Amino acid sequence: MATIKLHGNPLSTATMRATASLYEKELEFQFVHIDMKSGQHKKEPFISLNPFGQVPAFEDGDLKLFESRAITQYVAHGYADKGTPLISNESKKMAILRMWIEVENHQYDQAASKLMWEQVVKPIYGMQTDPAAVEENETKLGTVLDFYEKTLSGSKYLAGDYFSLADLHHLPTIHFLMNSQSKKLFESRSHVSAWVADITARPAWSKVLAMSFSDMPYGTWLLCGPQECLVVFDSGS
Amino acid sequence: MATIKLHGNPLSTATMRATASLYEKELEFQFVHIDMKSGQHKKEPFISLNPFGQVPAFEDGDLKLFESRAITQYVAHGYADKGTPLISNESKKMAILRMWIEVENHQYDQAASKLMWEQVVKPIYGMQTDPAAVEENETKLGTVLDFYEKTLSGSKYLAGDYFSLADLHHLPTIHFLMNSQSKKLFESRSHVSAWVADITARPAWSKVLAMSFSDMPYGTWLLCGPQECLVVFDSGS
Ligand SMILES: N[C@@H](CCC(=O)N[C@@H](CS)C(=O)NCC(=O)O)C(=O)O
Ligand SMILES: N[C@@H](CCC(=O)N[C@@H](CS)C(=O)NCC(=O)O)C(=O)O
Repeated sequence: MATIKLHGNPLSTATMRATASLYEKELEFQFVHIDMKSGQHKKEPFISLNPFGQVPAFEDGDLKLFESRAITQYVAHGYADKGTPLISNESKKMAILRMWIEVENHQYDQAASKLMWEQVVKPIYGMQTDPAAVEENETKLGTVLDFYEKTLSGSKYLAGDYFSLADLHHLPTIHFLMNSQSKKLFESRSHVSAWVADITARPAWSKVLAMSFSDMPYGTWLLCGPQECLVVFDSGS
Repeated sequence: MATIKLHGNPLSTATMRATASLYEKELEFQFVHIDMKSGQHKKEPFISLNPFGQVPAFEDGDLKLFESRAITQYVAHGYADKGTPLISNESKKMAILRMWIEVENHQYDQAASKLMWEQVVKPIYGMQTDPAAVEENETKLGTVLDFYEKTLSGSKYLAGDYFSLADLHHLPTIHFLMNSQSKKLFESRSHVSAWVADITARPAWSKVLAMSFSDMPYGTWLLCGPQECLVVFDSGS
């Protein structure tokens, strides 16, 4: 039985970020499906795992965490000897990596999340996309991607010549934005475009996407190994 | 001559965060004053250090960083043997610490920064504070601080029984909010209130505040040691 449990929703970007790190590390884990439509993330037992009522939440034995980027960092450091390294052992390389984690957090994600909200989430809920908000955030994201283009002209990945958490953290929003008009921002920059093609083709990422099947009945969860997930029905305890 | 250089403005919260980590580590550093009123942060040479044109930026020999929380993490890891530890050697304790770094980043700072903008920054620029925005963000910050109160009833600091980056990252916004009506949110929660009193009384923090004297003439910078800063006039090179 896996001791690692990830509680989340396969369509949530923050959940996908955490899931990607588990697959890169080839770890076995239990995926506990949180049905957001019925508000399970705002109720017990989930709210005891994350008092802010947001997916994902994570358990490894007695360690309980939330915040997707803290989960990925724990997975990378705690299972350093498994799968893809995702981090570096060298102090200055780690400093650059942590800077990129903050750049994704503060510069990229601010604009990318708003573009997702306008173009991906709002249509699902029958709300109108606001073209002015799209334009404003495309300009912001463009400025951010100019810096990425410059960086990626000098190294294959953001934090150096190895695939790291700095790259991985971008995958979920890139996935959704590549299915929106904002994909032009990525495609029009040659190094960014090659980087997107490279990181979205990773086998671990395909496994994350394969989990994005639609709602599972309550009480169902997945037992995921490095290769596949088994659906398990929990008859209650 | 100090090899560590911090480029920033003594009144910027992000600069203060980085400066606090240098004082906690008792490191010698050169503080390069960036005059934001004249827009130095949007021009060369600063923009080569941070393409997003925001203070602070940091140099340690050939390592160049920006993003305040990446700077503090590098300082804590890179100078682990100096001054206050600020981090832990233990994998699960570090996981909890990184979770708190994300909580400050995503939950606390979202509301705290908006409250600062409305109540501290806008009045400086002669703009009107928006009472509805203050109310909305006080409600949000209150929810966040309820979780802090619960945590701090079980441990002296956020990530355990030691002062860490998790606490330090809050200092600049707490400093300004304690001079606004929003201080009631901190004062009305007994454990939060004791924590604020404890962390703001740290000698390293007093040294950060002592640097907040008003504008220095162009070409002036500070050579800061663990105890004091010397003003240096740079006649150009
Ligand atoms: N900073 C958090 C964000 C988590 C988050 O916003 N999750 C979304 C789904 S992607 C959620 O649960 N939203 C529901 C809500 O905020 O009420 C993380 O990275 O884990
Ligand atoms: N996430 C950045 C934020 C830096 C930041 O916003 N700095 C402000 C001063 S506190 C600034 O330079 N603002 C000018 C601007 O954004 O144009 C960090 O933590 O370093």
